[in-house]
Amino acid sequence: MKNSFGTSVTVTLFGESHGPEIGAVVDGLAPGIIVDEDFIRHQLSLRRPHGAISTPRVENDPFRIVSGVFEGKTTGAPICILIPNENVQSGDYARGLVRPGHADYTAECKYHGFQDPRGGGHFSGRLTAPLVAAGAIAILALRRHDVYLGTHIHDLAGVRDRSFGNLQSDLEMLDDLEFPVLEELVAEQMKEKILSAAQDGDSVGGVLETAVLGMPAGVGEPWFGSVEGELSAALFGIPAVKGVEFGEGFGFAELRGSEANDEMKVENGKVVHLTNHNGGINGGITNGMPLLFRTVIRPTPTIHKEQRSFDSETMENLILSAGGRHDPAIVHRARVVVDSVTALVLCDLLALRYGTDY
Amino acid sequence: MKNSFGTSVTVTLFGESHGPEIGAVVDGLAPGIIVDEDFIRHQLSLRRPHGAISTPRVENDPFRIVSGVFEGKTTGAPICILIPNENVQSGDYARGLVRPGHADYTAECKYHGFQDPRGGGHFSGRLTAPLVAAGAIAILALRRHDVYLGTHIHDLAGVRDRSFGNLQSDLEMLDDLEFPVLEELVAEQMKEKILSAAQDGDSVGGVLETAVLGMPAGVGEPWFGSVEGELSAALFGIPAVKGVEFGEGFGFAELRGSEANDEMKVENGKVVHLTNHNGGINGGITNGMPLLFRTVIRPTPTIHKEQRSFDSETMENLILSAGGRHDPAIVHRARVVVDSVTALVLCDLLALRYGTDY
Amino acid sequence: MKNSFGTSVTVTLFGESHGPEIGAVVDGLAPGIIVDEDFIRHQLSLRRPHGAISTPRVENDPFRIVSGVFEGKTTGAPICILIPNENVQSGDYARGLVRPGHADYTAECKYHGFQDPRGGGHFSGRLTAPLVAAGAIAILALRRHDVYLGTHIHDLAGVRDRSFGNLQSDLEMLDDLEFPVLEELVAEQMKEKILSAAQDGDSVGGVLETAVLGMPAGVGEPWFGSVEGELSAALFGIPAVKGVEFGEGFGFAELRGSEANDEMKVENGKVVHLTNHNGGINGGITNGMPLLFRTVIRPTPTIHKEQRSFDSETMENLILSAGGRHDPAIVHRARVVVDSVTALVLCDLLALRYGTDY
Amino acid sequence: MKNSFGTSVTVTLFGESHGPEIGAVVDGLAPGIIVDEDFIRHQLSLRRPHGAISTPRVENDPFRIVSGVFEGKTTGAPICILIPNENVQSGDYARGLVRPGHADYTAECKYHGFQDPRGGGHFSGRLTAPLVAAGAIAILALRRHDVYLGTHIHDLAGVRDRSFGNLQSDLEMLDDLEFPVLEELVAEQMKEKILSAAQDGDSVGGVLETAVLGMPAGVGEPWFGSVEGELSAALFGIPAVKGVEFGEGFGFAELRGSEANDEMKVENGKVVHLTNHNGGINGGITNGMPLLFRTVIRPTPTIHKEQRSFDSETMENLILSAGGRHDPAIVHRARVVVDSVTALVLCDLLALRYGTDY
Repeated sequence: MKNSFGTSVTVTLFGESHGPEIGAVVDGLAPGIIVDEDFIRHQLSLRRPHGAISTPRVENDPFRIVSGVFEGKTTGAPICILIPNENVQSGDYARGLVRPGHADYTAECKYHGFQDPRGGGHFSGRLTAPLVAAGAIAILALRRHDVYLGTHIHDLAGVRDRSFGNLQSDLEMLDDLEFPVLEELVAEQMKEKILSAAQDGDSVGGVLETAVLGMPAGVGEPWFGSVEGELSAALFGIPAVKGVEFGEGFGFAELRGSEANDEMKVENGKVVHLTNHNGGINGGITNGMPLLFRTVIRPTPTIHKEQRSFDSETMENLILSAGGRHDPAIVHRARVVVDSVTALVLCDLLALRYGTDY
Repeated sequence: MKNSFGTSVTVTLFGESHGPEIGAVVDGLAPGIIVDEDFIRHQLSLRRPHGAISTPRVENDPFRIVSGVFEGKTTGAPICILIPNENVQSGDYARGLVRPGHADYTAECKYHGFQDPRGGGHFSGRLTAPLVAAGAIAILALRRHDVYLGTHIHDLAGVRDRSFGNLQSDLEMLDDLEFPVLEELVAEQMKEKILSAAQDGDSVGGVLETAVLGMPAGVGEPWFGSVEGELSAALFGIPAVKGVEFGEGFGFAELRGSEANDEMKVENGKVVHLTNHNGGINGGITNGMPLLFRTVIRPTPTIHKEQRSFDSETMENLILSAGGRHDPAIVHRARVVVDSVTALVLCDLLALRYGTDY
Repeated sequence: MKNSFGTSVTVTLFGESHGPEIGAVVDGLAPGIIVDEDFIRHQLSLRRPHGAISTPRVENDPFRIVSGVFEGKTTGAPICILIPNENVQSGDYARGLVRPGHADYTAECKYHGFQDPRGGGHFSGRLTAPLVAAGAIAILALRRHDVYLGTHIHDLAGVRDRSFGNLQSDLEMLDDLEFPVLEELVAEQMKEKILSAAQDGDSVGGVLETAVLGMPAGVGEPWFGSVEGELSAALFGIPAVKGVEFGEGFGFAELRGSEANDEMKVENGKVVHLTNHNGGINGGITNGMPLLFRTVIRPTPTIHKEQRSFDSETMENLILSAGGRHDPAIVHRARVVVDSVTALVLCDLLALRYGTDY
Repeated sequence: MKNSFGTSVTVTLFGESHGPEIGAVVDGLAPGIIVDEDFIRHQLSLRRPHGAISTPRVENDPFRIVSGVFEGKTTGAPICILIPNENVQSGDYARGLVRPGHADYTAECKYHGFQDPRGGGHFSGRLTAPLVAAGAIAILALRRHDVYLGTHIHDLAGVRDRSFGNLQSDLEMLDDLEFPVLEELVAEQMKEKILSAAQDGDSVGGVLETAVLGMPAGVGEPWFGSVEGELSAALFGIPAVKGVEFGEGFGFAELRGSEANDEMKVENGKVVHLTNHNGGINGGITNGMPLLFRTVIRPTPTIHKEQRSFDSETMENLILSAGGRHDPAIVHRARVVVDSVTALVLCDLLALRYGTDY
């Protein structure tokens, strides 16, 4: 699998930053899912840059679905979503120029100079737009089974949001937030950090926390088909993700077994977990508790500060400094990408578990 | 993929804690790799419990390779490694008893009571033994191409080892250490923490850090075939792993872009990275720097302390307390499992990149 | 795998007969392949209906490549090829009407009425157009390594073409033939059979024979990764293919071992096979001889003759008779589809064997 | 996929003709299937050589299941079946000797001399024994859902069996036949042909025909996930299979559309197909009619007649003539292998369609 993931529900991503169109093909979603195009637009708007904390580059995403949807519902055939690249300025790049923190050098090593170098080419974060459109349909598919998910900024540049509380209301609230934090006050503090970095010609990263409500117990596979493994494999595909942890995650290193296990009891004939340290997964398989995981988003690599690098065509050293205005943070925008990828992976796991009509 | 991972080089794991034999099938390794059985035994000994900090359960692992090796070398055909389960006491379990932190409940949800419940059945950490034997051959395969890897305990119960320094000598040193830390003094402090938890009838977790030296640049795929994604998908298959991070990992949330990017220069016609914040991977593809990642190992779930749980057959609540002696920590033993899985994934990535003779 | 095939080189097909656009995504082709758009157009023209023996429906295929190609060469990133559906008459279908020999009923069983029923929807032979465009690039990729392939009509409605002779000149000749037979006279006889069937409001089928020149020995895998298995899995994806045979194929049933084995000798230090009964494959792996296989194309299902069927919405019986003009044979048009699929599978096998730069 | 097939239900084959043990791992079968070891033994006996028409080599197959079965039922975890190789005479081979019709030369090309050359090594038909044992469990799994299958010798050396009639009784009858033909008289005629070839130091091939009763409609995927494609991919993995055809197969070339389509009607509210020319599959998806397909088994390559070949170590030409006694035909023994592979593929397709509990 290269630009694809999934087994029963699969996603394939294609396109380049400065190509005519970018897109995704989603295959294997159940037939009959209502494809609410307004919801797709809403999700795309959450990914789009807004306000002073983002690039002023206008990214309008007039997607079109050219297959797999008939009379407003999925048919069961592959869904191809296309988004044209508008406002593309072909002069915007210099061949051979290697930007630190980007994939310019690794693309050169892998593709021997044949890669499209304009705006990051195929590695551009721009490709997350069709991924979000695809994920929107997956989110709608999950909702038919009362599975809901959402992501907030857990921490950014030292500022920390409160933890998830009542999941149902927290997830509902997040649905409409452009800057996804659970505490209103925290949003302002984080935005200040972003603006401060922007003023320094620099950028910041952060941690996203995702919760999934309503996943049935018994989904996933032991060993190498674990829910953690399937989710992380896809989540690491999102540009800038450099870590994924479930439940207490790296915090487990500070806990003892008695603090790390989730005790259980039977109440009115139903099994109840008393805590959720393991993020809803034991032995790779869902236990009926909410899934809980965090992904770290590294600081945006494009910065105004001067950096040492080189030209891969002339092999000469040079000092780089990004001109124009760029995203001083993409953590808030990455949120909807994480939700999208998560939803697509869960649709796959559920289809494998319960069949292709699920 | 369920109990398997990999595309060109694949591994399939089978067996149960109390079954007659456990094993692994490795397919796709290049023909002609010298299979040093002493090295396999050495690797298995690193996984085996030793001394006061582990279970006194004797795990002797008289593996046998029944296919894929001829006259001491790999043939290119699938290699099946079998390890008999000796000292298995069938009375050692109570059906229906759900142990917190284990996969007992999720197995029940998934397999409807048909799972083998003895000693964790198919979910038992015991199955990492054939995985280590398989990984040993992969490590030998990598060494033919001057790719070396090793893992130390980064931190355990608040005690922290020094960071990797000279990788070549650090990796060599780790090869022979039963308790893998870079600072001798730290070993004693960590072992004290483990013993202290054991005295409390409890257990501890920790973080492992892995380095890989010698990976060529240009290996891996963009988006969903990233080196991070492939490694994490397999690493999360190791029992107790609940987080994986690359380079600065979750630390990226505290950094600015200027601190997170790895600057480069050309020196004597060769590309040199000045730092390695990104753990040797940009855009999912290796950049020629050492791979660097960390995995968190949650505290061993089996503890003597009392825990609330229930019986899945009678649906009655009960209080559990593990009898006998158990591992108060498996972090040090998990190290060789992490190395093994890493080596197998890298063999797969290299075979995909350079072909099946590599 | 659903609408996709391949491991290192993959193809994903999407679209519907009456949707706005159809297309294919090819991933994993080596970087640097020159994408000759004229050659793609030429290949598409071989698939297009021509003359009296085909539907007079105009199928112009103004494809566009929206990704994966930069400055006329493959970049290594996924290539998305799109073809708009022009001249689509939405009134051309009646929902619920089940046509014998088509996938109407099976689509209904699988998709529960949500499938796009217009013109066969996603099952339409129309989708072979982007497959041919994708295959054209694969054919160009193979030619870089002196691998050439071609297909002729082996027999059609009782008329039989001569066998392959000098492969190099036979393959060259086939490249430009709209009606691909090796004997000119045979073409007329076959066309007469087609016209005769057309006059009866009926259709005919036939057998295609494919040869591949230049495949290196040692490609493919034992058992379930055999070249026969990989090719047939993809070839059966072509609509109307109902049989695939290699070398002597079903003719082996009439042979004795001494007539079925291919004897060998060493000549000037090189291994020479004296015959090619096994179609260039032993034990699933190429032996250096030309690949040789045949596929049967069943008669076109759409005919003017009356057929009994039913309406899946009203569940009432009815008599169907296709109006308008349709293809009385697609054997000659299927030829380029077989070549395309074959080329894509071979690119995959070669990339797995020799790596992603091959 | 190399020595494996399947997506949700997978099989991995390992071992060599003269190695200590051969085996298979089956993963993904539903939990709770009763594993009737007598039935496995019965199936293995059908594969074993019997009487004058086979090699007198004694193949006793004392299989053991070392995982995935608990208290006589599948657990849902991978099932590893092992069969020791008894009576192995290590002197039975000459390294470098290339036998025509075998995989000796292609193995040399692929594995560069590292392959196990004894008795065909990993390519030996001996490995179909664990495949049959694995398939036996799959057959039992299908029977739980009233899916039954069976195979007879359609024709052998010019002698033809009658066609399938009443499927239910025909399949029942075949279950117990060592030499699987529907007409008793035909068995004698075929055996005479085999003996006659044996007397000439030669061998014969034949065609097997398989029927599957009870497959629900709507299973399989369009395009490259077709039932034909999935079955053929695995069937071509069986040594000696060189062709696969569905329904009328290559006979379609002689038919007209009006003879090739299967008309339908609604009767008592149920859809009825009036014929089954398409072998139960339209557009790659099951239509509820019995699956019907044929596989050709080429003549056994090992013969007493003299054949020209060479030694791959000395590169000298030589004349080969197999000593000892060998199978003059394996068609009748291959039958149970075809049934086994078919059952495993169908279990996979059904699990993908209906989920892992099916």
